[in-house]
Amino acid sequence: MHAYRSHTCAALNKDHVGETVRLSGWVHRVRDHGGVLFIDLRDHYGITQVLCDGDSAACAALEKVRSEWVVRIDGRVKARDASLVNAKIPTGEIEVYATEIEVLGASDELPLPVFGELEYPEETRLTYRFLDLRRETMHQNMMLRSNVVRWLRNAMWDQNFTEFQTPIITASSPEGARDFLVPSRLHPGKFYALPQAPQQFKQLIQVAGFDRYFQIAPCFRDEDPRADRSPTDFYQLDIEMSFVTQEDVFAAVQPVIQGLFEHFGKGRKVDSEWPLIAYRDALKWYGSDKPDLRNPIKMQDVSEHFRGSGFAIFANLLNNEGTEVRAIPAPTGGSRKFADRMNAFAQKEGLPGMGYIFWRKAEDGSMEAAGPIAKAIGPERTEAIRLQLGLDLGDAAFFLGGKPEVFESVAGRARNEIGRELGLTETDSFRFAWIVDFPMYEKTDEGKIDFSHNPFSMPQGGLEALNGDPLNVYAYQYDLACNGYELISGGIRNHKPEIMYKAFELAGYPNSEVDKRFGGMVKAFKYGAPPHGGCAAGIDRLVMLLADTTNIREVIMFPMNQRAEDLLMNAPSEPTLQQLRELNLRVVPKES
Amino acid sequence: MHAYRSHTCAALNKDHVGETVRLSGWVHRVRDHGGVLFIDLRDHYGITQVLCDGDSAACAALEKVRSEWVVRIDGRVKARDASLVNAKIPTGEIEVYATEIEVLGASDELPLPVFGELEYPEETRLTYRFLDLRRETMHQNMMLRSNVVRWLRNAMWDQNFTEFQTPIITASSPEGARDFLVPSRLHPGKFYALPQAPQQFKQLIQVAGFDRYFQIAPCFRDEDPRADRSPTDFYQLDIEMSFVTQEDVFAAVQPVIQGLFEHFGKGRKVDSEWPLIAYRDALKWYGSDKPDLRNPIKMQDVSEHFRGSGFAIFANLLNNEGTEVRAIPAPTGGSRKFADRMNAFAQKEGLPGMGYIFWRKAEDGSMEAAGPIAKAIGPERTEAIRLQLGLDLGDAAFFLGGKPEVFESVAGRARNEIGRELGLTETDSFRFAWIVDFPMYEKTDEGKIDFSHNPFSMPQGGLEALNGDPLNVYAYQYDLACNGYELISGGIRNHKPEIMYKAFELAGYPNSEVDKRFGGMVKAFKYGAPPHGGCAAGIDRLVMLLADTTNIREVIMFPMNQRAEDLLMNAPSEPTLQQLRELNLRVVPKES
Repeated sequence: MHAYRSHTCAALNKDHVGETVRLSGWVHRVRDHGGVLFIDLRDHYGITQVLCDGDSAACAALEKVRSEWVVRIDGRVKARDASLVNAKIPTGEIEVYATEIEVLGASDELPLPVFGELEYPEETRLTYRFLDLRRETMHQNMMLRSNVVRWLRNAMWDQNFTEFQTPIITASSPEGARDFLVPSRLHPGKFYALPQAPQQFKQLIQVAGFDRYFQIAPCFRDEDPRADRSPTDFYQLDIEMSFVTQEDVFAAVQPVIQGLFEHFGKGRKVDSEWPLIAYRDALKWYGSDKPDLRNPIKMQDVSEHFRGSGFAIFANLLNNEGTEVRAIPAPTGGSRKFADRMNAFAQKEGLPGMGYIFWRKAEDGSMEAAGPIAKAIGPERTEAIRLQLGLDLGDAAFFLGGKPEVFESVAGRARNEIGRELGLTETDSFRFAWIVDFPMYEKTDEGKIDFSHNPFSMPQGGLEALNGDPLNVYAYQYDLACNGYELISGGIRNHKPEIMYKAFELAGYPNSEVDKRFGGMVKAFKYGAPPHGGCAAGIDRLVMLLADTTNIREVIMFPMNQRAEDLLMNAPSEPTLQQLRELNLRVVPKES
Repeated sequence: MHAYRSHTCAALNKDHVGETVRLSGWVHRVRDHGGVLFIDLRDHYGITQVLCDGDSAACAALEKVRSEWVVRIDGRVKARDASLVNAKIPTGEIEVYATEIEVLGASDELPLPVFGELEYPEETRLTYRFLDLRRETMHQNMMLRSNVVRWLRNAMWDQNFTEFQTPIITASSPEGARDFLVPSRLHPGKFYALPQAPQQFKQLIQVAGFDRYFQIAPCFRDEDPRADRSPTDFYQLDIEMSFVTQEDVFAAVQPVIQGLFEHFGKGRKVDSEWPLIAYRDALKWYGSDKPDLRNPIKMQDVSEHFRGSGFAIFANLLNNEGTEVRAIPAPTGGSRKFADRMNAFAQKEGLPGMGYIFWRKAEDGSMEAAGPIAKAIGPERTEAIRLQLGLDLGDAAFFLGGKPEVFESVAGRARNEIGRELGLTETDSFRFAWIVDFPMYEKTDEGKIDFSHNPFSMPQGGLEALNGDPLNVYAYQYDLACNGYELISGGIRNHKPEIMYKAFELAGYPNSEVDKRFGGMVKAFKYGAPPHGGCAAGIDRLVMLLADTTNIREVIMFPMNQRAEDLLMNAPSEPTLQQLRELNLRVVPKES
């Protein structure tokens, strides 16, 4: 017989009754039922009930084992009484009568119980990650993640994409975040960088003549702590294609992502209609460039109804250039109580409050509009607003005014809150939209023109467009939004050196700076570059959505804590003097 | 019609004759056949012949394009004359008459031609890697590598292994090489390390209750330059399993590796009998712990025939303890000329020479032994040697004497040389062997006991064995040798803290040092660790063998040069002062 097991802990059923078997696993739970000792023996595959009665040697040994000890158990398979069958687990028809036990790995007292999955502080969980990972939910999350990655790979291969690995120890690749640097021992004073993304390499792969590239790629960004992201590294499904337009990328990606959610979504509805929404419209309608379309609320510009109206705040405000009044319709939200609650929400968000109108039944049975705004602007304007928003008795509308760029994100959060509070937002579906037509440039607070998103995207209209007002230039750039998250970001790339130099010049970078920072890629573009484009999807976020968690550390095997420390492996740590000497480095005391 | 192509450059055949098509790709070659311009248009998929005659606008445009320009071509598919059909390519039956041309990406003059694959200095090839990769052999190598990795993944999944990604920014994991360090910005003066291998993490995954792990894992070692390895990072197929013995690992691995070579070996024979050879025997028989078994020569100890013989050099030498005379049989090598050539080889290797006997036809037609040694030891001993080695007329034997550890590696190289020179070594096969029973410890030059290989392996005989002479302890550790390369290395791990502490103590490491260096793993072993073991296979080496190349840079997309520089991306490079300041680091001038 095998040294450790004849079967896994999920393998035995009625067919094995009478057989002598050998199992190995962790002691999940010990119960003493009046002289009969029950042990749930657990391995990666499942749980088998083991027991012993009487005073055999096995029983004496079994009495000593504790939770999470690893043991080998020899025994005979017996059928359970019909009344004791557990239909929930594959081994629920049988139990194993132990005849011999060997302890393969004992355990000290547990700092974190595995059975029962009690809540524990995250620091404890990370310090004893090997115990935390034995818990059922975490085990399932890790298997989910692994299966998701596998599924994505196969889906990409099935679409004729080829996976290539790009360098990890490489040059700085400015993507807007900080690089992690790696000092070079062979070249004192010089440093490598870990790639923030394989952006330049995947573009080089296209220039090198490969047609459809993908990679489950590790990316490294020295980020300041934030709850929902890893402070060091993350994985993305990285995609690039040659001779494609934006539509080709969408056509390649949708079946993969939609298929993934259908496969792993546990029955949640998966949207197959993916609308294209212009960036500007997304902000206007949803107050976000990653709108949650499970929420049916669509905001509208209602400025005309307030211009010159009796509601002085908005009327005056609209005299300033670039201002607007926007309405958030709130079907079924038509009560003073709800309006007050939303007002309180707005105040929590730092606004003086949020104006509203709601439509209730008047004492005479007719519909009447309530709230200070309705009073101030009068019934005609109020009714025009109601008709524009398509609202009715029992509904409400909330209003925000000012410069859209100032109030849009609050408006978006209010829309979320209203949708959730009123139960309008679906909770059992995934809804997608491509956000397109991102502006290429924006004006910084100092009045400078700078790239508003990815500097490598092709400007719509090419070189010609760059000769006009930069703020009117859109880029072939797109995001995929799902349930309020940005799942994917990508673009059709700028593959022409002359357009690239011009695009950077507008943002204040001379050619020499472009050559210095993106030298490899720009050089490549001078030797026959194909039109190309692609995108990248965050793996952690995909898995978070599928696992229905908002904590990224629940879907990473060995995550850093939020201070970028590995508590189990003790990283980062002090280097040895010899290491510093070999790298020609000295640590300087932090200036106070 | 699509903006760039209706078909790829490998898609068109006789069925498309008469169709109007659109192709995009690189100008592979331009030929002017007396007013008719031929262009081979190339993309990732293949090559299509495009031509234009007459003086159309298309022709005028086509005249301007040069090699490696990227163009879009519209045209009509025509059948080639039967005499002009090229059966070697899928598009060989047709050609496309261009009607319109658009230049999508022009090219400067090429520093490196793509067509023809001329030899070029490696520095040029790496500086213009994007051109180098367009060459057919490199394109094929990259596709081979990608397909190998894909195949391995599927083979592992098919055997119920699960792929998990382990951290890349992590703690130092001493594996015998130098770590790459990554300074922490948030924790001034502290450093992360890039993993030399996921060794500790994969063991933690087993302790965390996952049964069969694998990963195509990036590994990072700050190595000094060597021709056949990457100076920074490499990939390995990393495997770990719980509740297994050494035989279980072999049984899991052989179908994967054998299958891989059968699938990608291009018809070369793939050995299915994988012998187990003890480390000690491998050195004795083959002079190497990674023997090339395509070579049938097996060396033998022939000391007894020289002890007290008339060949004084060996006879005297054998009076010293630990010495031995070993014979390399050389079937069909029985000529003075060959013996002299091998003698010259030995001298090139730094030996005074290599003694030999060869058996030739005497003038009377009988067999006679020739060479100084035969004369010195006389016919009886000579004949005994011949019989022991199973040699005959026309064969030879070479002899090396001394301490085996001193001459074994030269003997191994001589065996290679003899096998190759005499055409005994197969050139169209892959032959495998598991090398087992590695000694756990060795004596260093200073007389200290130290680990001879992997300190994490379980000593055969467990704790008890460690109470005897350490030099007699074997480890559950193994390598897979193939054609003279070490393809895989692995072991059954030491999962018991008390045995681990003892094993390290013997090598001079106190418990506190073990806790400090391998803290995470040792801690985990105290909370219920399963017996486990595994191995790792070098991806680069697998692909090198399959691609029949000995230069690792031929199978890596963007390799470093041998000075650990990326000539295309300009890495490593000087950091900015601000980067250094953020990391609290100062570069100190190299001491002279």
